[in-house]
Parts: sequence; structure tokens; C-alpha cells
Amino acid sequence: MEHSDLRLLNKILSPRDLAALDAAQLDALADEIRGLLITTVSKNGGHLASNLGVVELTIALHRVFDFKTDRLVFDVGHQSYVHKLLTGRLKGFEELRKRGGIAGFPKTTESVYDAFNTGHSSTSVSAAIGIMRADALQGVRRSVVAVIGDGALTGGMAYEALDDVGQQQLPLIVVLNDNEMSISGNVGGMSRHLAKVRSGRRYRGFKRRFSSSLKRIPHIGSKLSDRLERLKNRFKYFLLPNVLFEELGFTYLGPINGHDISALTEVLEHAKQMDKPVVVHVLTQKGKGYAPAEQNPEKFHGIGKFDEKTGESKSSVGNSAIFAGELCRLAESNGRITAITAAMTSGTGLETFKNRFPERFFDVGIAEQHAVTMAAGMAVSGALPVFCVYSSFLQRAYDQLLHDVCLQDLKVIFGIDRAGLVGADGETHHGIYDIAYLMTLPNMKLLSPSSRDELRACLDWAVENCKSPCAIRYNRGVLPERAYDGGSVLRWEFISPAAPVTVAATGRMVEAAINACKGLPVGVCSARCLRPMDEAALEALSRQEVIITLEDGIVNAGFGAQLAASMCERGAACRVINLGVPNRVVEQGTVAQQDEECGIDEASVRARVLEQLALAATQVREVKNV
Amino acid sequence: MEHSDLRLLNKILSPRDLAALDAAQLDALADEIRGLLITTVSKNGGHLASNLGVVELTIALHRVFDFKTDRLVFDVGHQSYVHKLLTGRLKGFEELRKRGGIAGFPKTTESVYDAFNTGHSSTSVSAAIGIMRADALQGVRRSVVAVIGDGALTGGMAYEALDDVGQQQLPLIVVLNDNEMSISGNVGGMSRHLAKVRSGRRYRGFKRRFSSSLKRIPHIGSKLSDRLERLKNRFKYFLLPNVLFEELGFTYLGPINGHDISALTEVLEHAKQMDKPVVVHVLTQKGKGYAPAEQNPEKFHGIGKFDEKTGESKSSVGNSAIFAGELCRLAESNGRITAITAAMTSGTGLETFKNRFPERFFDVGIAEQHAVTMAAGMAVSGALPVFCVYSSFLQRAYDQLLHDVCLQDLKVIFGIDRAGLVGADGETHHGIYDIAYLMTLPNMKLLSPSSRDELRACLDWAVENCKSPCAIRYNRGVLPERAYDGGSVLRWEFISPAAPVTVAATGRMVEAAINACKGLPVGVCSARCLRPMDEAALEALSRQEVIITLEDGIVNAGFGAQLAASMCERGAACRVINLGVPNRVVEQGTVAQQDEECGIDEASVRARVLEQLALAATQVREVKNV
Repeated sequence: MEHSDLRLLNKILSPRDLAALDAAQLDALADEIRGLLITTVSKNGGHLASNLGVVELTIALHRVFDFKTDRLVFDVGHQSYVHKLLTGRLKGFEELRKRGGIAGFPKTTESVYDAFNTGHSSTSVSAAIGIMRADALQGVRRSVVAVIGDGALTGGMAYEALDDVGQQQLPLIVVLNDNEMSISGNVGGMSRHLAKVRSGRRYRGFKRRFSSSLKRIPHIGSKLSDRLERLKNRFKYFLLPNVLFEELGFTYLGPINGHDISALTEVLEHAKQMDKPVVVHVLTQKGKGYAPAEQNPEKFHGIGKFDEKTGESKSSVGNSAIFAGELCRLAESNGRITAITAAMTSGTGLETFKNRFPERFFDVGIAEQHAVTMAAGMAVSGALPVFCVYSSFLQRAYDQLLHDVCLQDLKVIFGIDRAGLVGADGETHHGIYDIAYLMTLPNMKLLSPSSRDELRACLDWAVENCKSPCAIRYNRGVLPERAYDGGSVLRWEFISPAAPVTVAATGRMVEAAINACKGLPVGVCSARCLRPMDEAALEALSRQEVIITLEDGIVNAGFGAQLAASMCERGAACRVINLGVPNRVVEQGTVAQQDEECGIDEASVRARVLEQLALAATQVREVKNV
Repeated sequence: MEHSDLRLLNKILSPRDLAALDAAQLDALADEIRGLLITTVSKNGGHLASNLGVVELTIALHRVFDFKTDRLVFDVGHQSYVHKLLTGRLKGFEELRKRGGIAGFPKTTESVYDAFNTGHSSTSVSAAIGIMRADALQGVRRSVVAVIGDGALTGGMAYEALDDVGQQQLPLIVVLNDNEMSISGNVGGMSRHLAKVRSGRRYRGFKRRFSSSLKRIPHIGSKLSDRLERLKNRFKYFLLPNVLFEELGFTYLGPINGHDISALTEVLEHAKQMDKPVVVHVLTQKGKGYAPAEQNPEKFHGIGKFDEKTGESKSSVGNSAIFAGELCRLAESNGRITAITAAMTSGTGLETFKNRFPERFFDVGIAEQHAVTMAAGMAVSGALPVFCVYSSFLQRAYDQLLHDVCLQDLKVIFGIDRAGLVGADGETHHGIYDIAYLMTLPNMKLLSPSSRDELRACLDWAVENCKSPCAIRYNRGVLPERAYDGGSVLRWEFISPAAPVTVAATGRMVEAAINACKGLPVGVCSARCLRPMDEAALEALSRQEVIITLEDGIVNAGFGAQLAASMCERGAACRVINLGVPNRVVEQGTVAQQDEECGIDEASVRARVLEQLALAATQVREVKNV
């Protein structure tokens, strides 16, 4: 789809321009948008299936509300592409998810139409409540709409917020975008409940009884029945009060066909008029309008570049698959091993485990807190749980990690995927805090392998030898093939021996250190175990002049800072220079661009090393001259 | 109540001994337990009201299940005193919450009857599910019971777990201990729902209709009606299916009078036989049997020592009251200020704010995640939210702090109460991680005042001058009266000028540093702003020989470690010695005992200072001798 083909979309300079379109044109607009989404995401990667699912819903929302003043909060926010296209961001959309381009998530800095930044799940209702309460204090009257998927509803904080709305009777409009799956197919009682509502048993039952009793009245019956039928179809959402939401204090409207713009417009108009909490239950199809995505919506949830015609993408073997493969191997002989995911079966590579050991595989939905404490429960009762989770999402379970796992010193293994900088998803998705906070938790062991074999060795050690909670972090993508030295994973590896200037790196940064130091007379050390630190290695390092630490984590309290503190404590004379992610927002781009921005790419590291070598040489000269 | 008066309780060496008691004896036992609870807590402090509420429930649980093999998980765990008394811990109960004594929360290391350690809210169902799943894998058949209060149900993770139980039809028994309040009176739609169930409208309606229609049949009616009446009273919990739980996939039994041991026994026996998820809804009265606690259950939730006869406790002015008082003063002239609490109105001193500015006061229940993101929503819409929260509980909202507040650089103020070591509540309640993690979050400012006036000044600065998220941490208890120097809170204060040996302390530790250094030729610096650090002060410190840092937070990634890293980066020649809380579990005791254990009490600090002074003197002599 070329921009010149977007005859209707090109005319939508702001959402107000939607008013000029008739029903047929609106449908045509939806088609244009779908075409553009498929083309753009096939080139840039991104969230396709969810955006294809909300094209009509987003159009209807912008027809009914004026989100320049009214407020719209997208939960997670990966489904905001259509919203961006309708709010003046068609120009520049080809730079979606690229450095300096349109973000893949809502950004208040991008547009007045973006009310609140999102990225993680289940925050929208809380944010919307905050907005409404602040509005109320200032006498501002406007509509506030939260769009939340059925998957995000498995996250507990959404429930905390719904509970608050219902009790206080805040006139929030919650649009429940029900595509019958979170990222990897939905789980949980709420999902079962929604399925029951969807099947419309009660609604259909009512309709049948009503029609047949009318039809029994001769002559008149049939015609009246038809009229009432139309009326009921129009307002059918009134006939199915949904107990769960009603019990929480909401008025329930739905379910509505999420691909019918006029039905959506009507129900949203109605919701807008009601001055109380309302849930609009909208049924959408993830991937709608693109056959490969309809057939495999999980694959097209968050996807890299793919072939627009076939939907085929190059999927290389990544760290997730290496970790999960090794886990399967170990689980073959160790029946205590269980694998847990929070709606990321495919993303964390656990599909094979799921198929081979279904009774030992647990997908709890988008519920990291529950996942971690459930793992703790498994551990006290004799299982060996392994929770595979993106670093950024594990943040949700910080308290559970500490309170339930570490304080009790329970053997739970964490496969921390997408650790470090993550590229195009941007600042909400970086896994750059894990080193800093995991190193402070009591009893926690933290491993950070630098090669594929080392990654496997770390998991082997955790399963077979570790007695405590153990976290193994690995980046998005794949570690190099570099041979594993076979030593204890608790010992750091000196890839080149300690020298007056030595670089101590961890995880994927070891490769960068090796390359940066090629041909230079410097030491390179791979710190593969961050907690406990290798005391012998620290001792060797303490005798050097300069240590440059290198990590793809937050610099001011991570591996490097703790190494520095250790040197200070020893009274070592060496200077420690910490390289890592600075303590500010690192926006979307490629990982290479982000590395460069943070000064942790090969060139920057080499420059720092050369600078220190030069300084050391000067000092040697000075000493000689004395 | 003396131990010699506990005629029945003294005979309960294990829960099996309950079987020998008849109904009257069981009631007498309950009275003995209440007497002992009141006496012990009046001396040691602790959680009184909640334990008085569950005396009969706990007796009934131990009559029906054998928790040596069956598993019992108490949510929060502050209501486990009765359980401890019935499971062999009467001896030693007078040492409740003291160093080395019985803990105020379940401890797996204390007894085989304690299945899982708790302390924070809403974890029980997750832990129980984990236990059940591990059991299932190992072919273990036993009952698993989670006891959760209605307050804990406002926490989202409980819902994540209930959702999982319901969907998977795990035969878990959830005992909903409904005392109609969390810590400070309940909020939320769930609470409203429970109130509706409690009022029994539908049940009473059914009963009335049923009885009156039977009574219309002459002669027979009345007698049959009476029999059915008895039957219905016996099984009345069958007649009130609770939609919300049923929709989540649970069988609902209740509500049951939580102070009727025989009714409780009966319903629990029934629940034990059912092989599916069941909620037993039990109505209890917080503080039951002790008039002062019945009248003011919030006061007696967690309480210090009090007069057993009158219920009166000495409540001194603490930091909470100072912070909240200043907040009220500021709110008088600044209408944008809102105050938020997560079920801790009284604990955080917000009662006055609540009464004076009810429209700007928000208690969201035990829902820290929601509280933080709601605050972020308020901030984007023009309010100035202040969230007062215990440090330990803020851990629940780590991700929301980062994702919703800091990445968006929103002005939300955090009053972080109970920061540092907390004494008798033990390891689950320490606020020792906040410095470490708050210092890594982008845009966050972190203040750590050392006196009452400085605490007020920090809040004033945050409200009036800060443009970013700002956290102000203060310990349980009260800071000293020491005069505030009137300087910027962003500048560190040199209480005595920098010297070759200088102690840099923060928060309440400044007073310890001053006292430890009395009469010694050392510098003392108060680091009242931990982020950003005061560069000028760091520069001054970098010219010294030894800096001893002192903080009541985790030592390996906190203020001291970051100061050390900063010294290393500057290439400063000084040695940095970090004193703080070691990275291991610090158990219950007085704060003074915990300080001593951690080596951060005055005597330990003085010893370290003297040691460094001696070392410095030796070095001076050595230099002179050269």
C-alpha cells in the first residue's frame, strides 16, 4: 500500500474529518488503514494483529468523542497505530518504531491526542481514574475512555482499578476489547466468564422465547415480532446484563460486533450519555483482514519484518529458544521441573516445553505477581519451578521476588529474557533495571552468560547445583557462539589476562569488549556471575590501575557500581570507570543505535580504553621523569 | 491472663488435642485464647483486632484439617497468633515479636504447621495454587486452605490467583474472612458486593416467600415450615450462591457466623469433601471480645504496648504526623494537592487530611499498583498527588513507579513512611530497599531528611519547587528536633567540616553519626538529597582520606555504593567504607537490636571511626618517618 493510494486517509487531517464520510466511505477508510498497517509493519516490525483488530473501533471512538479534550487511554498501547493515523500522524508513519520516528506506543510528547503513555499491561483504568479525579477537582467536564483488552484484564491491577471505579461510581467508559486472547491465548476464570457472555446463551434464549410467544398471536404477531426483532438487534446489548461487571458496579453494554462501525458508534454514543461507570464489551478479531494474521494472531502480535504477501518472517534461533531447549532437555530427566509463563509462551520459546510436558507447563496470563508467588508455592512443596519472563515485565513482581521467593530462600529459577536494551519497543520495554535490583535481593544468585554454551551451562548449574533463587539474564536476539571454558559459572573468565587497564564486561557486552580491545594490551574479563561476585577475580582486578566496567543495564547502581564499591572497600588504588545505560530515558531505535547513544558500543568502548591507555602511558613517563 | 490460668490451652499440645473438647469447652478455650492475646499484645505490641476476630475460625480449621500434612496459608499472616497457640507455640508466646522469639507472622522455620511465610497482602491464593500444583505432580493428596481477608481481596494479585483457580478448577478451599474492613475500613466494588451478600437480601427474601407459602397450607404447613426452617438455617449457605465467585468458577458457601465453632466446623467439613474450588465466606468481628478493640478495630490492628484495662496507648508524635501535618498546611493554600493512601489512613497520619479535605483524599484499599498509576493520571491532568505509603508496601508498585510516573517524568510526591529497619514486624516489613531502587529510576528525586524541620522543608520543596517525581523517605518513629540550617534541601549539610576521616550519613542515621563522632576530629555530613547527589559535597569529600557512609538501607547498592562509584569515577584517592544493612535477612527485634546486628548503631560506627583514625595516624607517622 503506497501513500498515494490512501485516497480517504490522506484527507483525514484530524479526527473531525471523519464526520464527512458516509458508511461506505468509512468501510473503505478501514480497508486503506489495514493496507497501510500491513505494509508498514512488514517493513518495520511491530504489533500487527492487535491493530488490525481495532480499526473500526478506533474510527468509531473518534467519531463519537473529541479526544483533543476528551481523554482516551489505551491499555498496553500497542494497539494505538490506527489512533495515530487518524490524529495527524500519517505523515511520518513510515518511520514507525524507528529512531526519532513515531513510537509504537502512545506518547504524550507526540500528540495532544495521546492522553497517557502506556507499554505495560493493565494500567489504563487506573490512569483514567486519576485523570477523572483531577478533572473533578478542577471542575473540568469531559469524557474519559479506557480501552482494555481481555488479556490485560488478567492483570490484577486492572481489577484493583475496576473495583475503585465501581465503588465510587465514577462515570468512566471502559471499552473491553475482547479478542478472545491475550498474547498467547487467554486463561483464567474471567476469560471463561467472557466466553460465556460471548456465546450469548442467555441472550439467545431470551430472544427465542420472546419471539415465539409473539408469533403465537396470529396476523399481528409476525409483523410486531419483526419490528421488535429489529429493535432488539439494535439494542441487544441492553438485554444481556453481565453479572460480573454489574456486581462490580458497572452498567454493562454488549457484546457488540467490533467490526461494525455504525453499531459501535451507536453504543458509544449511548455510553457517552450515561453519567455512570459503563463497560462496553466489544468483540474483535485479532489480525482481522490479513489472512496470515487471522490464522496465527500470536505470531503477528509483536513481529519483526515479514513478507507482506506470504506473511513469512525469518525467525532465527534466539536466546529464548536456547534457554527453553536446554530446559526441555533437563526436564526429560528431572520430573520436578515446571515451566511458567505470563502470557508469553511463544516469546519465551516455551512452545516445545508446553507440547512435551503439558502437565508441567503453566501459563497464568498477564499476571507476573501471581506467577512468582505461585512458583514460590511450588518450591515449598517440592517442585522446581522455572519462570521465563521478559525483564521489563518481571518488574511487576519485584515485591513477590523479594517477599515470597528471596526472603524464604526458595529455589525458583528465573529465565530473564529481553534483558538489556530492546530496540524498537523503546523505553517502556528495556530490561535495564534487573541487574541493579536483583543484586540487592537476599539469597538471589544472578548469572549473566556471554555465549550460547554459557547460557546452557548457567541453566544446568541452576538446576543441578544451586540451592537458592537464581536468575539468569539474556538479551533479545542471540549470544555469540564463543566456546565455553568449562569452568564454574560462578568464576569470572579472563578472556585476556588482567592488565593495568582491564575491561570487565557482562552478558552480551563481553563480545563488545573483546572486539573493542582487539590488538590492545588490555585485559578482558567476563563477569558471568554478578551475584555473588567472584572474589578472586575482584582481588586480581584490584591490583590493576584502571578497570572499565561494561554492562547493558542502568549504570548507577548495577554491576559496575558494585564493583567500584568493592574496590573502595578494599582500599584498592585502581580507578573504576563504569560504562552502562545512563539514568535517563533511552528512546526507541535499533539496539545498535541505543548502544551508541549510551556509549557502550564497540567504538565508544575502544575510545575509552585508548584514552586510559594513553593516560597510563603519560603517567609512566611522568614517574620516569621524576 | 497468666499462663497458669490457661487450663484448657495448656492441654493443647497439638491440634489433635482439640478433638477431646466438647462445645462448651471449645468456647471456654476461645475465651482463654482471647485473654492471652490481649495480655501479650498489650505488653509486646502486635496485631490484636484481627487475631481476636479469628479465634473460633482457627479452632474450627484445626478441628477439620490436619495441617501437619494439609496446608494452611494465611494471607498477610498477622492473624496467625491463634494458629501458633494451637500448634505448640504457647510456650514462648510471651516472647512474641521479640528478638529470637515467636514471630508475628507465619514462619516455616518455626513449625511444620506453617506452610508458607507471609507478611504482605494478597499472596495466599497464589502460594496455595503453587503448593497444589506441585502436590499434583508428585501424586500428593491433601487439602490446601487459604485464609484471606476481605481487605486483602482489594489487592489485584489475589484476583489474578482466584482467576487461575476458577479456570483450572483446582480444588482449593478459600476461606474469606470477612470482617468488613481492611486496615482502615474497606473500599471498592468487591467490598460493596460483599456487603450486599452479607445483608442477605436475597436469602431473606427467599426464606420469607418460602415460609409464607408453606404456612398457607393449614395444619401441616406450620410444622413442615419449622423443619424446613431448621434445615435451611443449617445449610443456609447453600441458598445464597454468590454470583461474583460463581462467575469466577468457585462454589460459594456462606455467609457463616465466624464466631460459631460448630457452624464453622460443619461448613469446613463440607468444603473439605468437595473436590473443586470453593469459597467459604465467614463473617467475623475484628476485635471480638475486647471492647476497646471492637470499638476501634483500626487502632488495634497493629498497635504498640497499651494498657490492658483501658486499651489506652501512648501515641507520640511520629514522622507520619509531621509529614501529614505539613501536607495539610500546604493543601490549605494549594487546591491541587491530593492525598492518596492504600488502606493506611491512620498509619500514615492522614486522618486529619481526610477530615479537612475529604474531596481531595483517596483511599484505594490495599492496591498500591493502582494508587501509583492513578496518581500518575492525576498528575497528567493537573493535580498534585501525594501518595503516603510504607516503604515495604511501595515495593508492590515498583513497575508503576518506573513505567507510569518516572518515564513520563510526572510530578507525583511519595511520602515513604517506615523507611529503613522497622523492628518487631521483622524482615517482611523492612523498608531497606527503597534507596537502592529509587536511585536508579529516571527523573526521580530522592530526599532523606535527618530532622523534623528538614522533613517539613523537604515536603515544602517538593510541593513548591520540584518539577519531577520526588520521594521523601522517613523512618518509623520520629526524627530528632535538630535545627534545620535553612539551606537548599538539595545541598548536603556539613555538620562538622570535612576532615581526613569523614562520615557521610543519611536520614535518621545522621543523628547516630553525630553521636558516634562526638569529641573526635572527624567530619560529619548529612546527605539529605540522595538523588541527585550534591556534586560540590562529593568534590569536598573526594579530597579526604576515608569516607565512611552510613545508611539504614541495603548496603550493596544504596547511597554508599553509589558514592563509592562516584569517587572511583573521579579517580579520587580516598577509601570509602560503606555501612548499612547487609544483604541478608534481618529478623525481628527492636530497631536498636537490628542496628547493632547490622553494625550501624552508634557504638559500631564509633568503633569504625576510631579504627580509621588510628590507621590514618599510623600512616602519618610512617610518612614522617620516611
